[in-house]
Amino acid sequence: MSREFDEKLRQYISLTEDSLKEYNGLTPETEPQKSLITAMNYSLDAGGKRIRPVLVYAFCELFGGDLRKAKAPACAIEMIHTFSLIHDDLPAMDNDDFRRGKPSCHKAFGEAAAILAGDALSVLPYEIIADDDSLTAEQKVKIISRLSKAVGRSGMIGGQVIDMENESRNDVDEANLRNMYRCKTGELIAISCIMGGICAGADDAQLDIAAEYAFRLGLAFQIIDDILDVTGSQEVLGKPVGSDAEENKTTFVTLYGVEGAQKIADEITGEAMELLNKFENNAFLAELTEMLLKRKN
Amino acid sequence: MSREFDEKLRQYISLTEDSLKEYNGLTPETEPQKSLITAMNYSLDAGGKRIRPVLVYAFCELFGGDLRKAKAPACAIEMIHTFSLIHDDLPAMDNDDFRRGKPSCHKAFGEAAAILAGDALSVLPYEIIADDDSLTAEQKVKIISRLSKAVGRSGMIGGQVIDMENESRNDVDEANLRNMYRCKTGELIAISCIMGGICAGADDAQLDIAAEYAFRLGLAFQIIDDILDVTGSQEVLGKPVGSDAEENKTTFVTLYGVEGAQKIADEITGEAMELLNKFENNAFLAELTEMLLKRKN
Repeated sequence: MSREFDEKLRQYISLTEDSLKEYNGLTPETEPQKSLITAMNYSLDAGGKRIRPVLVYAFCELFGGDLRKAKAPACAIEMIHTFSLIHDDLPAMDNDDFRRGKPSCHKAFGEAAAILAGDALSVLPYEIIADDDSLTAEQKVKIISRLSKAVGRSGMIGGQVIDMENESRNDVDEANLRNMYRCKTGELIAISCIMGGICAGADDAQLDIAAEYAFRLGLAFQIIDDILDVTGSQEVLGKPVGSDAEENKTTFVTLYGVEGAQKIADEITGEAMELLNKFENNAFLAELTEMLLKRKN
Repeated sequence: MSREFDEKLRQYISLTEDSLKEYNGLTPETEPQKSLITAMNYSLDAGGKRIRPVLVYAFCELFGGDLRKAKAPACAIEMIHTFSLIHDDLPAMDNDDFRRGKPSCHKAFGEAAAILAGDALSVLPYEIIADDDSLTAEQKVKIISRLSKAVGRSGMIGGQVIDMENESRNDVDEANLRNMYRCKTGELIAISCIMGGICAGADDAQLDIAAEYAFRLGLAFQIIDDILDVTGSQEVLGKPVGSDAEENKTTFVTLYGVEGAQKIADEITGEAMELLNKFENNAFLAELTEMLLKRKN
């Protein structure tokens, strides 16, 4: 990792974490809902890699935009990611007691509070984007239109439904898996890059390339998740390993084995790098891609 | 009920129900998520009074706006109301097996599907508003800014948190109850009226009066709910009666008795009518207010 990359990454993450606190701070107005804000912040603070907001900032700078314009979309996408984790962890869904090494939201605050904290984190993004004072009304509408689609029926939530239904199927093939990952993970990765581009005034052709890069990044990332579920350790991952096999899930590893899955991930990574090379000043994103796709946790 | 009122009401409801189907129809794009769309439509179709979309349309016409402009906001608010009912009915929340006389969403489709159907219905509103082609970008941003606040931490979801926390308190007083109802019910009623006004180009002073009217309508409506929980019948209400007392909830009836609560509801209704009288051409809304606040179910 270069020093420039490391500094930039820290800057993006610190911008994100400062802004998240600011956007979801307690005010006299929200005092009666203190427990809700506390549960929301507990999950927002739980850390993680902040990949999605980093991508918003990185694509904003890639297209020569002012980082301040990316602030609301960067926090919005992290809120949505957090909302999805809270609801995914619920007993009726994946029933995970731990998330990033800490008790999951419903273990810490109860199930009803977790449902509501997730709900509130799914709405706040639209508020902070609509209220941002550095973006034009047209930019906001374009961002909200694409963001809500990336989250909704045909996006992340739709992907979660496909994932759930796959659990009771024994005929899940690569096409199904690719579509599920594209919806469940890829759409949020892609919208992160797209929003960064919109903030910087990128044109639709540029946004399309950014999205194509992002879908490959997301897919390779997910395949590596499949691999790490088998090869990783609980200590490093902060969650139980082997959970896919236990739940009898079809993954790229169950379809093609660890080596086969790694080969596919490498190919897709290569395609992602090629797409990235269509842009100048891509050094940060090239290092980021490498870091994410060679990670051990 | 006058014939004009009845026709207008049917028109607004039918506009709403036609548009809901259109917005949440199955497309080739959403085919893999068919079960999700089915669960969403099951709850959207469950009927109910469609009060919120009717208010959007009525306030749009009150301020001389074109009804087509109100289409997206009218459906958006019904989707949000439906999302809140689906999540409120969940076992971890109010644990209601029936809603509007039909099995609630989680009873019909399972708990995980209900969580996701609610999630998807909480996002779709922002998509359909952002994509509407009759509103300006400025109108959309103003609507989304206010709508997301009405739904979020300090609005409906915040109200649900206060309601939940009140269950384990024995010191709930009128001020708490008024605030809880204002958040939980009033905010969605108010934003319905406000959005109708924004669609018609109403100014902020007019929107303020509309909101003041709406908060009173919402509060009186909720107090009448408290009364009907004691005096209504399951057949008419489509849900078990006496559930408040069973759950040891503080309501206007437990605080002031049925007659006392009715007196307060009547006073607030009078204030609502006074506010409404600040507008011309308010005949429909006056009849609607009367219908809602003299209802028996």
